[in-house]
Amino acid sequence: MKKSSFVQAAMLTAGVALSGAAFANTAVVNSNITEAEVLKAQQMWGNAVVQISKDFESGGLDKAKKTAQAALDAAYAYDMGPVLFKPTLAALPQNIRSTEEGALAYFVGGNKQFPNDSGFALKGWRNVESKNAVIHLNGNTALTMGNVSFTDKNGKVTTVDKTWGYVKDSAGNVKIVLHHSSLPYTN
Amino acid sequence: MKKSSFVQAAMLTAGVALSGAAFANTAVVNSNITEAEVLKAQQMWGNAVVQISKDFESGGLDKAKKTAQAALDAAYAYDMGPVLFKPTLAALPQNIRSTEEGALAYFVGGNKQFPNDSGFALKGWRNVESKNAVIHLNGNTALTMGNVSFTDKNGKVTTVDKTWGYVKDSAGNVKIVLHHSSLPYTN
Amino acid sequence: MKKSSFVQAAMLTAGVALSGAAFANTAVVNSNITEAEVLKAQQMWGNAVVQISKDFESGGLDKAKKTAQAALDAAYAYDMGPVLFKPTLAALPQNIRSTEEGALAYFVGGNKQFPNDSGFALKGWRNVESKNAVIHLNGNTALTMGNVSFTDKNGKVTTVDKTWGYVKDSAGNVKIVLHHSSLPYTN
Amino acid sequence: MKKSSFVQAAMLTAGVALSGAAFANTAVVNSNITEAEVLKAQQMWGNAVVQISKDFESGGLDKAKKTAQAALDAAYAYDMGPVLFKPTLAALPQNIRSTEEGALAYFVGGNKQFPNDSGFALKGWRNVESKNAVIHLNGNTALTMGNVSFTDKNGKVTTVDKTWGYVKDSAGNVKIVLHHSSLPYTN
Repeated sequence: MKKSSFVQAAMLTAGVALSGAAFANTAVVNSNITEAEVLKAQQMWGNAVVQISKDFESGGLDKAKKTAQAALDAAYAYDMGPVLFKPTLAALPQNIRSTEEGALAYFVGGNKQFPNDSGFALKGWRNVESKNAVIHLNGNTALTMGNVSFTDKNGKVTTVDKTWGYVKDSAGNVKIVLHHSSLPYTN
Repeated sequence: MKKSSFVQAAMLTAGVALSGAAFANTAVVNSNITEAEVLKAQQMWGNAVVQISKDFESGGLDKAKKTAQAALDAAYAYDMGPVLFKPTLAALPQNIRSTEEGALAYFVGGNKQFPNDSGFALKGWRNVESKNAVIHLNGNTALTMGNVSFTDKNGKVTTVDKTWGYVKDSAGNVKIVLHHSSLPYTN
Repeated sequence: MKKSSFVQAAMLTAGVALSGAAFANTAVVNSNITEAEVLKAQQMWGNAVVQISKDFESGGLDKAKKTAQAALDAAYAYDMGPVLFKPTLAALPQNIRSTEEGALAYFVGGNKQFPNDSGFALKGWRNVESKNAVIHLNGNTALTMGNVSFTDKNGKVTTVDKTWGYVKDSAGNVKIVLHHSSLPYTN
Repeated sequence: MKKSSFVQAAMLTAGVALSGAAFANTAVVNSNITEAEVLKAQQMWGNAVVQISKDFESGGLDKAKKTAQAALDAAYAYDMGPVLFKPTLAALPQNIRSTEEGALAYFVGGNKQFPNDSGFALKGWRNVESKNAVIHLNGNTALTMGNVSFTDKNGKVTTVDKTWGYVKDSAGNVKIVLHHSSLPYTN
């Protein structure tokens, strides 16, 4: 059976000679998610938002939509089932986007089923920065809470309260299973 | 060694005769959290908010504070470390309450370290109802996302977007490790 | 993104209308392994051993080897990395078969790298029965300990002490990650 | 609420200032078991076996039994429910010791309910060494497979095939939930 690159890497790390003979070394297989993997996933999410903005400017909605679809496929666990996703600017009764279609509508708009979506990722973003207050690592899952700051092409910064839940699947892909984002409360 | 009531219940359920002799039945030990346990935890959280309101009215801040402290001890996993808690009405830079002191301040106010806290649970609540859009059950952890509606003594209803993460500890207690609450976005 | 049959089943069970609109029902996604899945995996393992025996009798080593290879691919988690497998009749220093090649040699023999393997699954088995003393269910993993009885074509029964560890992967496949089998101790 | 030493250590490691104010650092809470914790648990198990032997020689069965009881309490998860334990020298039908009473009988004998137990830990052990072929780390659980060698006071070495399953409980204690030990197969 073919081994995934994930497994091959694990084997190399463990330095295991995969023979059936007496063992000189211990093969350690660690399926837990790491802080580094979580931080990388956050950075990739931010990069995707910036890329969608730039693709929208250079290639219009079609280009932006393709980029967004690929980013959602890679970053969110919609292939595993309904995702817990409450985007920043989604109002009741469409506040929760458990399907990929709903998530795509939120990021790029243009879907009559979600008439209030204007496309969050189309708003000229140039930089996205995540700052975590707390990270919980628990097996192949992680939870983070903190703030994310978005800078647009005019230098205006928007900061949101952000909670993410991640799972590392059997193939080693880190996916978002939970995403709650909200504008900070102001008195 | 003394067994916890949690374990005793598990053994009864499994119908296991705990002898060392040949086994007639299979002892099944299931350490996963259930949907029923999650729903019960949500209900207990809501009941606690209502109780704090009533105790405030009948016994003042001292009584409310005692009730709140006991409720936090029982419901949140601050005994396991920093909790991911972003309350509805907590503004930057005190938006995240990773300590129990910060959580207590949010619910009942009266803490100079958190000068903007007026005490969310003191606002005359009479009923709290949770409605979940999606629940993920994963081992001894669960994630929920949905809306929670608070009804006050005048019948006014406030609905918030709510995400909870739970863990069932070794003793069988279900505790909140993550709580992100926010007012729904409005255009 | 295409959804696996595993996920589709989960959605049907939850009765979730996968729209982005207000939620009438709660979608419950449960990634835990169940006792029924564990028992089914044990039965499939037993069936495979019997099938290999029958295929060896009807089609020789080649046929048996093909059946064994397919059974190992389906039943063991060698695609995820080294498996903890100590077969009943494997002597030191080749007692532990962390690779699929070693496992295949154990079941059907004919591999010069494992000269002491005569092929456990070729020994005319007609029935395999598992009896569990204890089962632990913990998230997407399970552990079982008990006895397994093999009946050959002459009606002779061999009983072994058997420990299995299972994991349910992201696609919903239940795989063996641990298998320790030994002849019962006799004074 | 009082924090366990486990949690305090986690907080120190994370360098987290537990205030409710804006976060300068990220608090990382990692509840996963580590390879080092597993190796330490194996070493403590071996040390306990040696200690029981020495206490038996210096203080008789009573002293050995006290040491064994304390070692079992500390090392095995009988407080969480039935343990999957198949000791090396336990014959059918008492091959599996899911209760602490059965485990104690195995290690020190002297229990009429387990008439074939002569007390494995009383056999003059002086050194115990574990060698792992494969270790799986998965959240707060670990699985190991390898060989353990026992050296007695005459220098005679006995090697067994050994599988262990561990869980780290909410308080940070690493406990054995699975233990399958067997004499190596010989042709």
